Amino acid sequence: MPNPHKLVVCGVGHVGSYVLADAMKMNLFGEIITIDSEHDVAHGEALDQHQATGLHTLSSTSVRAGTYADCVGADVIIVAAGPSMIPDPNDPDAKPDRAALAPHNAQVIREVMAGITRHTRDAVIILITNPLDTMVYIAENEFDYPAGKIFGTGTMLDSARLRRIVADRLGVSPLSVEGYMLGEHGLSAFPALSHLTVAGMGPAEIERVFGVHFDPAELATAVVNAAYEVFGSKGWTNAGVAASAVAMARAILLDERTIFPTCTTLRGEYGYDGTVALSLPTLIGAGGAQRRFELTLDEWESQALRRTVAAIQDAMKAADVQF
Amino acid sequence: MPNPHKLVVCGVGHVGSYVLADAMKMNLFGEIITIDSEHDVAHGEALDQHQATGLHTLSSTSVRAGTYADCVGADVIIVAAGPSMIPDPNDPDAKPDRAALAPHNAQVIREVMAGITRHTRDAVIILITNPLDTMVYIAENEFDYPAGKIFGTGTMLDSARLRRIVADRLGVSPLSVEGYMLGEHGLSAFPALSHLTVAGMGPAEIERVFGVHFDPAELATAVVNAAYEVFGSKGWTNAGVAASAVAMARAILLDERTIFPTCTTLRGEYGYDGTVALSLPTLIGAGGAQRRFELTLDEWESQALRRTVAAIQDAMKAADVQF
Amino acid sequence: MPNPHKLVVCGVGHVGSYVLADAMKMNLFGEIITIDSEHDVAHGEALDQHQATGLHTLSSTSVRAGTYADCVGADVIIVAAGPSMIPDPNDPDAKPDRAALAPHNAQVIREVMAGITRHTRDAVIILITNPLDTMVYIAENEFDYPAGKIFGTGTMLDSARLRRIVADRLGVSPLSVEGYMLGEHGLSAFPALSHLTVAGMGPAEIERVFGVHFDPAELATAVVNAAYEVFGSKGWTNAGVAASAVAMARAILLDERTIFPTCTTLRGEYGYDGTVALSLPTLIGAGGAQRRFELTLDEWESQALRRTVAAIQDAMKAADVQF
Amino acid sequence: MPNPHKLVVCGVGHVGSYVLADAMKMNLFGEIITIDSEHDVAHGEALDQHQATGLHTLSSTSVRAGTYADCVGADVIIVAAGPSMIPDPNDPDAKPDRAALAPHNAQVIREVMAGITRHTRDAVIILITNPLDTMVYIAENEFDYPAGKIFGTGTMLDSARLRRIVADRLGVSPLSVEGYMLGEHGLSAFPALSHLTVAGMGPAEIERVFGVHFDPAELATAVVNAAYEVFGSKGWTNAGVAASAVAMARAILLDERTIFPTCTTLRGEYGYDGTVALSLPTLIGAGGAQRRFELTLDEWESQALRRTVAAIQDAMKAADVQF
Repeated sequence: MPNPHKLVVCGVGHVGSYVLADAMKMNLFGEIITIDSEHDVAHGEALDQHQATGLHTLSSTSVRAGTYADCVGADVIIVAAGPSMIPDPNDPDAKPDRAALAPHNAQVIREVMAGITRHTRDAVIILITNPLDTMVYIAENEFDYPAGKIFGTGTMLDSARLRRIVADRLGVSPLSVEGYMLGEHGLSAFPALSHLTVAGMGPAEIERVFGVHFDPAELATAVVNAAYEVFGSKGWTNAGVAASAVAMARAILLDERTIFPTCTTLRGEYGYDGTVALSLPTLIGAGGAQRRFELTLDEWESQALRRTVAAIQDAMKAADVQF
Repeated sequence: MPNPHKLVVCGVGHVGSYVLADAMKMNLFGEIITIDSEHDVAHGEALDQHQATGLHTLSSTSVRAGTYADCVGADVIIVAAGPSMIPDPNDPDAKPDRAALAPHNAQVIREVMAGITRHTRDAVIILITNPLDTMVYIAENEFDYPAGKIFGTGTMLDSARLRRIVADRLGVSPLSVEGYMLGEHGLSAFPALSHLTVAGMGPAEIERVFGVHFDPAELATAVVNAAYEVFGSKGWTNAGVAASAVAMARAILLDERTIFPTCTTLRGEYGYDGTVALSLPTLIGAGGAQRRFELTLDEWESQALRRTVAAIQDAMKAADVQF
Repeated sequence: MPNPHKLVVCGVGHVGSYVLADAMKMNLFGEIITIDSEHDVAHGEALDQHQATGLHTLSSTSVRAGTYADCVGADVIIVAAGPSMIPDPNDPDAKPDRAALAPHNAQVIREVMAGITRHTRDAVIILITNPLDTMVYIAENEFDYPAGKIFGTGTMLDSARLRRIVADRLGVSPLSVEGYMLGEHGLSAFPALSHLTVAGMGPAEIERVFGVHFDPAELATAVVNAAYEVFGSKGWTNAGVAASAVAMARAILLDERTIFPTCTTLRGEYGYDGTVALSLPTLIGAGGAQRRFELTLDEWESQALRRTVAAIQDAMKAADVQF
Repeated sequence: MPNPHKLVVCGVGHVGSYVLADAMKMNLFGEIITIDSEHDVAHGEALDQHQATGLHTLSSTSVRAGTYADCVGADVIIVAAGPSMIPDPNDPDAKPDRAALAPHNAQVIREVMAGITRHTRDAVIILITNPLDTMVYIAENEFDYPAGKIFGTGTMLDSARLRRIVADRLGVSPLSVEGYMLGEHGLSAFPALSHLTVAGMGPAEIERVFGVHFDPAELATAVVNAAYEVFGSKGWTNAGVAASAVAMARAILLDERTIFPTCTTLRGEYGYDGTVALSLPTLIGAGGAQRRFELTLDEWESQALRRTVAAIQDAMKAADVQF
């Protein structure tokens, strides 16, 4: 008998509720379960979406709040538990560092992983919780979960911001811009400018054709600022990262083998073996994160990579993560 | 030259932000403008969605925060300004009545309408602000806006809840349930049970085939409770009403002539002429709300209609609306 | 590991090629296999769609031509093998009766079913081949396939035509018309006018509100003529029936439990037990055709039902089908 | 009043019927008109799709057959008139050259353009008719149509094939391959290998990472063969080119400013000024083809460009087109 695909969304705050909303519109899932430490909120979000199917504009997915026991049979579990960014109470105008959440959210992610692994080791788990790279490292390395079946949305969102910024400066659609932010999902992420293309044109040709020069350090700052501009204006960011997670779920369920900038623990890439998790272009298919691509980096990018590794490892230390 | 459709979303709180998110996924709009009394929030929501187009999973709609001057050239304006429900501070477990918002939101809607009408009388305006029926009455009758071009999402959401409840009790898809809640978008809404069908079967045949009896008063309570169950659990409701507004926008932009339970000022239906706005099945096409259908009501429904008119007019009085 | 859903399309002529094209756009399948007695055509259609995924506008489903051995692991098999209607060579203007195809296509469907059942009894099989009711009877009753897992698109298409005709006469969207053609997918199909609704209004109320009277015999003729108008104009019909099959596939894969007018062998409904297959409203979910609904028919409809049974059984006799 | 977008499809054979089918699924158009020299076929295709809206799975677009007078008010006109490829009667296994159609289809396109321009110069016209480059040249240069508002789907389809071939050789999704075929839509098209990227990696890096070497001449042959493999197997190709035209329509109606490999008359690019139409990456937005990008070509590509110009001009001469 055909087996409708099942999604579990762990954590339905600002981000998880958007994950749920996006997942409802994709024809991908026959059943969606919400889990939250505030069970009432899980129930409210589930019921709100469940009721919306009465409009006849969505497929009639069944949505309800559940517990970790409902992870049995799940195809995909998306984890958005834990606060995503917290303003500094002493300096509300400062750019809050996602890394400051590490000690608190390390415990959150360990509880979530303990909950999940009591019931399944079959689902592919997509993490969104910040600081993402530390969370992925913990989840991938402390629970003996099958290889490739845990990863994080990583710099999907940072890369989307990069493409939109480039697109707007050139006056073209972001659909025509390809490019990646690599490393940390956070302050030390950097653009792989050597691999940025617009209609196949690299930076030098872009400069000749459009008369616009891109500087990697300036772009890195612009992308980070773009995140904080949203955060500072509305108090959180959710639209892009939710869409990222759902795009990854689609790649899994349809075995699309799409390459996304995905956060996983490195296994030798750039000389880092099991000591850090960060985002590299990674092939996502039915088996999860199936292959990482070690792009050739230029000198600036190589230094940026070392800096981002150091930044991520600082957050790991702050959370007492062994690596 | 083809003219990309333009949407303005006024008010991007819990509801408006979902309107925006849904509108991004429909291929309907080339340009979306957000307006909010907190301009920062309008900017943050716009920018968040604008950045998400860099994921390559959406069409590349341009989104930005604006002012009422941006209503020039808008095809559709969706108004979700003002708080949608407020808990009673003295009794947090009470069911808050949307009608209590009338005095405050009457001013909100007048400001919004004044802002819009300074710049356009061409756009079709879809209202979501509560108490919806009073808001629609004000907007439709105080600003001399072209007939049919202002209406409210009305009991779209209440009807979706009705269908989902019926569907769940019978074990069928809500896609196979057709039915309407009529009257107030709020506590006094009532099901037109005489017009409820499942695969074309009316209530008596449903009872014979499924062994499930539906009582109109009990269903009315169940639907109202469904709303408060979401509200009580997550603090607001937004998924269904946002999807309702966007479905109406689609019907307008494609001239679909779909019949939705829509809130407009009655012009003689059931003997009410210009004295109340409430939801009846209404044809929505390129011209807006083009025709109301005066369903034949049974005795219970006729009484329920009188009660809901009284309830709405009480809210209007509380807000000092002339009718 | 998540298991991407797999579709097999048997027969990729005018109808099957549209099934394939529609299935590509639904996010439902990770793998699609085409089978055709002309393997070249199966290959050409598969490759054409496979190449189209390079446009970046579709999900990247893998499509290839295969053999019945590829039915292993299929979730859904859609059978559009065999010619769908053939003009009468002696009278090209006559309305060709799908029933005339019975002897030929009975052999086609037996070969297809033999091919499928050598490799799987797990897939849900959706039949489109005409004369559909005879084909469903053969497939359901001669191969001991699990109950509910074979059915036909039935009067989905006839019902769509009914709704569009009603919609156009009333000037409303077909989305607001609910109604079924029942019985044969063919000349003797009849409208269940007693269960036709527009915004919940039945025929009498429609007549009062719209001033349009519907006569069941006239509507029956109009729907049949609508089919032949397409057939006579372009030489075949395919858009609607392909969309029907894919809508049913969605209901299966998402376990939507939607009620469609579906062709299955009756098991006691209206006194027919295992002697005829025809279309009644039927609940479609993950298990296939899970429940038939025996609508209360009025006198005209009851007679029409007897006539359509006789017509279907004549086709069965012409094909030497035992019943 | 909002103005629903209007599409005219000229020519509804194998290709035009797929354009229509794809356009129905996009939420882009409120009204679609079909025109064909065989009015019966135009009517049959329109009616078939019109009826399919009764399934409730599509938006309720109105579709009907019309005449050139219906081009008034059209936003987009897609022209798929004329045969697309014809087998050589003396050598059915030969690869038929689209260019052989030039003399015949030149007359077809002139009639179509005469028909359109009697009624509108406002619509953006997307041509699919082969040999495409000659047809675009005629349409753009003989009718004084506003600049940028006529172009052809060009090497959209050839580029999709290129991406799929590269994707399949590397075992990745075509969504992760960016690259263009340039020049003629036909035998002399060539890959801009210098601008091919997979996750931002160019050919040299692809070879290092995947161990797969791409040779431009071999790829050119593979792409051309891919077209003929479909053509030889099913007798025509339609899925990809139809989706290309509809993707372009979306870019126009939403003003996406997406860069597609589009066929237009060159105005100085690579030294050709008004003497040839061929495909270069081109920005498509509300104004039509708004900007061509003159990619930096390597030596092999430059020679291939000269060869493709010569091939196109030969077809133009064969059709007695002045240039």
